[in-house]
Amino acid sequence: MNYQQFFADRIADLRREGRYRVFADLERQAGSFPTAKNYRDDNVHDVTVWCSNDYLGMGQHPKVLEAMCEAVQRCGAGAGGTRNISGTNHYHVLLEEELSGWNRKEAALLFNSGYVANQTTLSTLGNQIPNLHIFSDALNHNSMIEGIRQCKAQRHIFKHNDVEDLERLLASVDADAPKLVAFESVYSMDGDIAPLARICDVAEKFNAMTYCDEVHAVGMYGDSGSGVCERDGVLDRITIVQGTLAKAIGVVGGYIAASKTLTDFVRSFGPGFIFSSALPPAIAAGALASIRYLKNHNDIRERHQERAATLKQRLTAAGIPLLPSVCHIVPVMVGDAVLCKQASDDLLRRHNIYVQPINYPTVPKGTERLRLTPTPLHDDAMMDRLMAAIVDVWGQLGIRKAA
Amino acid sequence: MNYQQFFADRIADLRREGRYRVFADLERQAGSFPTAKNYRDDNVHDVTVWCSNDYLGMGQHPKVLEAMCEAVQRCGAGAGGTRNISGTNHYHVLLEEELSGWNRKEAALLFNSGYVANQTTLSTLGNQIPNLHIFSDALNHNSMIEGIRQCKAQRHIFKHNDVEDLERLLASVDADAPKLVAFESVYSMDGDIAPLARICDVAEKFNAMTYCDEVHAVGMYGDSGSGVCERDGVLDRITIVQGTLAKAIGVVGGYIAASKTLTDFVRSFGPGFIFSSALPPAIAAGALASIRYLKNHNDIRERHQERAATLKQRLTAAGIPLLPSVCHIVPVMVGDAVLCKQASDDLLRRHNIYVQPINYPTVPKGTERLRLTPTPLHDDAMMDRLMAAIVDVWGQLGIRKAA
Ligand SMILES: Cc1ncc(COP(=O)(O)O)c(C=O)c1O
Ligand SMILES: Cc1ncc(COP(=O)(O)O)c(C=O)c1O
Repeated sequence: MNYQQFFADRIADLRREGRYRVFADLERQAGSFPTAKNYRDDNVHDVTVWCSNDYLGMGQHPKVLEAMCEAVQRCGAGAGGTRNISGTNHYHVLLEEELSGWNRKEAALLFNSGYVANQTTLSTLGNQIPNLHIFSDALNHNSMIEGIRQCKAQRHIFKHNDVEDLERLLASVDADAPKLVAFESVYSMDGDIAPLARICDVAEKFNAMTYCDEVHAVGMYGDSGSGVCERDGVLDRITIVQGTLAKAIGVVGGYIAASKTLTDFVRSFGPGFIFSSALPPAIAAGALASIRYLKNHNDIRERHQERAATLKQRLTAAGIPLLPSVCHIVPVMVGDAVLCKQASDDLLRRHNIYVQPINYPTVPKGTERLRLTPTPLHDDAMMDRLMAAIVDVWGQLGIRKAA
Repeated sequence: MNYQQFFADRIADLRREGRYRVFADLERQAGSFPTAKNYRDDNVHDVTVWCSNDYLGMGQHPKVLEAMCEAVQRCGAGAGGTRNISGTNHYHVLLEEELSGWNRKEAALLFNSGYVANQTTLSTLGNQIPNLHIFSDALNHNSMIEGIRQCKAQRHIFKHNDVEDLERLLASVDADAPKLVAFESVYSMDGDIAPLARICDVAEKFNAMTYCDEVHAVGMYGDSGSGVCERDGVLDRITIVQGTLAKAIGVVGGYIAASKTLTDFVRSFGPGFIFSSALPPAIAAGALASIRYLKNHNDIRERHQERAATLKQRLTAAGIPLLPSVCHIVPVMVGDAVLCKQASDDLLRRHNIYVQPINYPTVPKGTERLRLTPTPLHDDAMMDRLMAAIVDVWGQLGIRKAA
């Protein structure tokens, strides 16, 4: 076999389908988010970023940066080992305490990313609990899908956010078999939110554990900002809350929060946790500072929601088709891979506005989109420029408008 | 099913077998490695760490700390997205260029950890190349095992470092089938090194790709420090070099270096790469500074080897049984889980020396050990104290000495 040829052919396929990914080379500017420098064609351009998942701009918050630098100076760069072999730093311990308290659980466990948190926790439970049945929402994130695929558990896919379908599937399985229902709170590509209380109702009826991915909600919903489970008053009914420190928290890393025993179980049996070097102390310190700030600042959450609502209104008024998002995510539908890439390129090159096109496999073919994420730092002037640019590009490319 | 009871029972089993893991709560002290503060029993103790995988102490190097803080101040805390969606920072680009040059490959790709690099690369190749056969060393790290298990490839395990066995297995498979041989350079628990040139010989004979995990060699071997592949002059014969930024580099993260096409293929098809937020800019900046320093400092590698050789000599002279390590790792055999934990506890409590016990599943049952990792920063006085402490504890506990 000619390996190089095989790889080259597969990449040529991607190009032909218009879904070869070119990463924008950015340099974020702490102190002037959402502005960034964009290295392109041997030049550097100032651009406004409209697609970051640093949803609240905490990635430039002085308290976070200060905490990180202080920890670097104090404890050094890396953790120096896996959590078990010299890699547990006091900041990890403090952060896990903070995360458990925030999510009103007995304990929490840090992972190197939200991806690893999902994959390791779900596959570990699936491999270790004999005969486990996992019920997974049809639109769950790849990290959950991979975790569920990679274990011995039996997998049942329920229709997206469809509690009746979930109930039907739960009822179809032996009543005594161990069960777990896995879902997200905010679905990040469409911006819809799961009916958490009703999912808990049926899960409890069938004695199933519940696993909720709050990755796109952490920091942004609920009175203290821990997520939609808090907002909807169901935290105590969720067995395992999972989240990331890389989006609204503004740093990197992932976690689960759950009972002491369950957390200890994943800590003791999860390969992706056990066999990987711990996050640097400074990362834990930065995340800790960010969470402590967000817990007490509903103002930032209110401003965030206002920005998203305003942008949705303005786009709708301009006839730009949106998906009916009920959260801070603003998905602008294009519906064609090549056109979507072209719109993104034109926004960048002609208007210095950066919004990455979202294409397959992240979303289904035919639903390609520009996914806008207004933060509290996107002011009215930026929004004016974005609106003018979108109207211009939509006109130039003849992209379909709303009916 | 009573889930809590199930988890509690499994944890009770671990305790009974003497392999329940208690993490040492440490605070590393930049500027005075290998000293750390140890939070324990409501007190803080100064301890000397003898089991860190920050093998060269780069985690406290002023150039690394400076680069990290500078990047935090300049670009903020997190990357703000996946690599594709606003998360590529210019430091990632520079680091990937540095890694590809260092490993004399056309390209390199960053991952959030060495674990994710192994798991994602191997499972992606296995899932995407129809009918791939993977030949895996029997002592490969869990991250490779999981990657290989989780894909469609057919798996063949060859006896540890046994080139004849590998050849026999390669010959048993259809000559035209695509093949990949996966192995490590330094095996971190025993301290032995793979016969790289001979593995390449048989791999080439059967037109198999080669995949070498250099996690415990990066920074430490070869004239410019990129690893044992460089030292042994086989870099150009290895298809994919994999490594970590969390051990001798002193920060966190993982990578592969390979041809442009292969790297682009994993970049485009690897779920654990695509669907996870990128490492913070400051992490990439710190790793970059560390590698640039290490490339030009053979002195640190020479001092490192001298320290390891000296410690091995002194332990051997004192009748303490070692595995025959040919590298910087010094595995002291105890051979019993409970005794190994006890020795570690006594070293910590009575002598302020921290060495984590290594037990199953990290090593086979009956081969429990203390794995010492002398760094260039462990001076003679520290070694004197370590020797006295080990002789004392071995005597007190009646641990078996060498014949
Ligand atoms: C729903 C969901 N879960 C998990 C993840 C992974 O989290 P992380 O970026 O921290 O790896 C993502 C995306 O990044 C996500 O969208
Ligand atoms: C051989 C080997 N490969 C890969 C890894 C994982 O690398 P990382 O710690 O960067 O996740 C480890 C241990 O940590 C290892 O020992």
